[in-house]
Amino acid sequence: MNSQQLFGQIRKKQSYLCIGLDTDLEKIPAHLRSLHDPVFEFNKQIIDATHKLCVAYKPNIAFYEALGPKGWESLQKTLEYIPDDIFTIADAKRGDIGNTSSLYAKAFFEQMDFDSVTVAPYMGEDSVKPFLKFKDKWVILLAHTSNPGASDFQLMESRVTGRKLYEEVILKSKEWGSTDQLMYVVGATQAEKVESIRALVPDHFFLVPGVGAQGGDLELVSKYGMNKQCGLLVNSARAIIYASSGTDFSRKAEEEARKVNDVMKQCLDQYL
Amino acid sequence: MNSQQLFGQIRKKQSYLCIGLDTDLEKIPAHLRSLHDPVFEFNKQIIDATHKLCVAYKPNIAFYEALGPKGWESLQKTLEYIPDDIFTIADAKRGDIGNTSSLYAKAFFEQMDFDSVTVAPYMGEDSVKPFLKFKDKWVILLAHTSNPGASDFQLMESRVTGRKLYEEVILKSKEWGSTDQLMYVVGATQAEKVESIRALVPDHFFLVPGVGAQGGDLELVSKYGMNKQCGLLVNSARAIIYASSGTDFSRKAEEEARKVNDVMKQCLDQYL
Repeated sequence: MNSQQLFGQIRKKQSYLCIGLDTDLEKIPAHLRSLHDPVFEFNKQIIDATHKLCVAYKPNIAFYEALGPKGWESLQKTLEYIPDDIFTIADAKRGDIGNTSSLYAKAFFEQMDFDSVTVAPYMGEDSVKPFLKFKDKWVILLAHTSNPGASDFQLMESRVTGRKLYEEVILKSKEWGSTDQLMYVVGATQAEKVESIRALVPDHFFLVPGVGAQGGDLELVSKYGMNKQCGLLVNSARAIIYASSGTDFSRKAEEEARKVNDVMKQCLDQYL
Repeated sequence: MNSQQLFGQIRKKQSYLCIGLDTDLEKIPAHLRSLHDPVFEFNKQIIDATHKLCVAYKPNIAFYEALGPKGWESLQKTLEYIPDDIFTIADAKRGDIGNTSSLYAKAFFEQMDFDSVTVAPYMGEDSVKPFLKFKDKWVILLAHTSNPGASDFQLMESRVTGRKLYEEVILKSKEWGSTDQLMYVVGATQAEKVESIRALVPDHFFLVPGVGAQGGDLELVSKYGMNKQCGLLVNSARAIIYASSGTDFSRKAEEEARKVNDVMKQCLDQYL
């Protein structure tokens, strides 16, 4: 899926919602736990209930990896169940020396068939480029994340350029691939920063975590971050998928997704 | 295993060799490929041949992940096969927001029983600390890596302190845990840097990749990096495990490991 096709989906659904499949055996409704594959069963029902309201799903790989080989099977089944017109993100935050990154790319783009994978920039160009060799696949590079520790190193200012580390990451990495290959993770917890980051990369898509449970403001992020192709995928996980812990969980997830979607419709009207 | 016990193993074996289990189906000897689990069979024979010559094994997780659920089974079997007195490193380079890092920690320390995991520092303190909550388990934090891209961001100098990013990472993170919990990845490709990094953290262990196929110099690294507990685990992967692609691969691996070991014995005599 290229950026034009992704924007097509956003216009069609009037949504730039990404739903995070942070599926935790301890948090899913009790009545699912006795099933053969409770993680997949939960995801399936969440997807059934929400796929018309979102344009992307983002399984958080840690949740599957923590379950061992069985978790990877649940992940694979989930990925296959997601409708083809929905963008898929392996939230894996991988990154290693070239030959190793090639294997991570193979894991997520060939062994599985994700559209994109999140990648950490610390090891530089040769750790990122192997992911960019796959046709119609995307790297979503960590720039400014939404967690408290983001300020430990990402805000360090360069003695030479005066720019912060996350700005250096963006400016250097944007030369490594096209706007059909590279997105950036830009946290929502400080919405004003989204504006200055948008100025650095006017045409790239941003994956925006931190709306919902982490406290970011959807409307402000949309105001400051939207470009002419929308350019935003705003992720919400816990607030949607764990809206209820009862047998009504998928209906409640749909309701929550619809609430987000309503705000998105207004934002698209106002800021696109 | 704490640092005292690890040093005990180093003294006993007169070795600080870590063998990287970067096991690649395309590179292992052809006669193994028809077996039920060729990856485990290869690892098993490498371990049988080399375990007296090394103090650590480091499976590179990408190589297993690229094989899907079956790869994780090979990894688990390999881990269980490694003798208990050998330190194990999951070279995974994980790192995410707190609740997600907790799950990665659970994957490597509970679902599997690794002694340590490599972690990327970009997301800061709350992405690292969940790994430090496990008793007798280690974080090996990326500081200055051995790949070409290391210079893209790790060498950026702070406007405020004048220090480079990897130095900031070391100085900030060393407050997060003890010398029995934290090691640093320090690449061998520029051995002189090891000396300045050793000055920052005199008592921590370093995991040193880049000796062998990547061109680092074992003797220089040992001269500049050794402390009173040795403080070094020097990794070699390809040069040992792929020393031969024939049926004699494990014998050749043993020979290569022994060559490295001979240099290590001399270095321990000279620099410890």
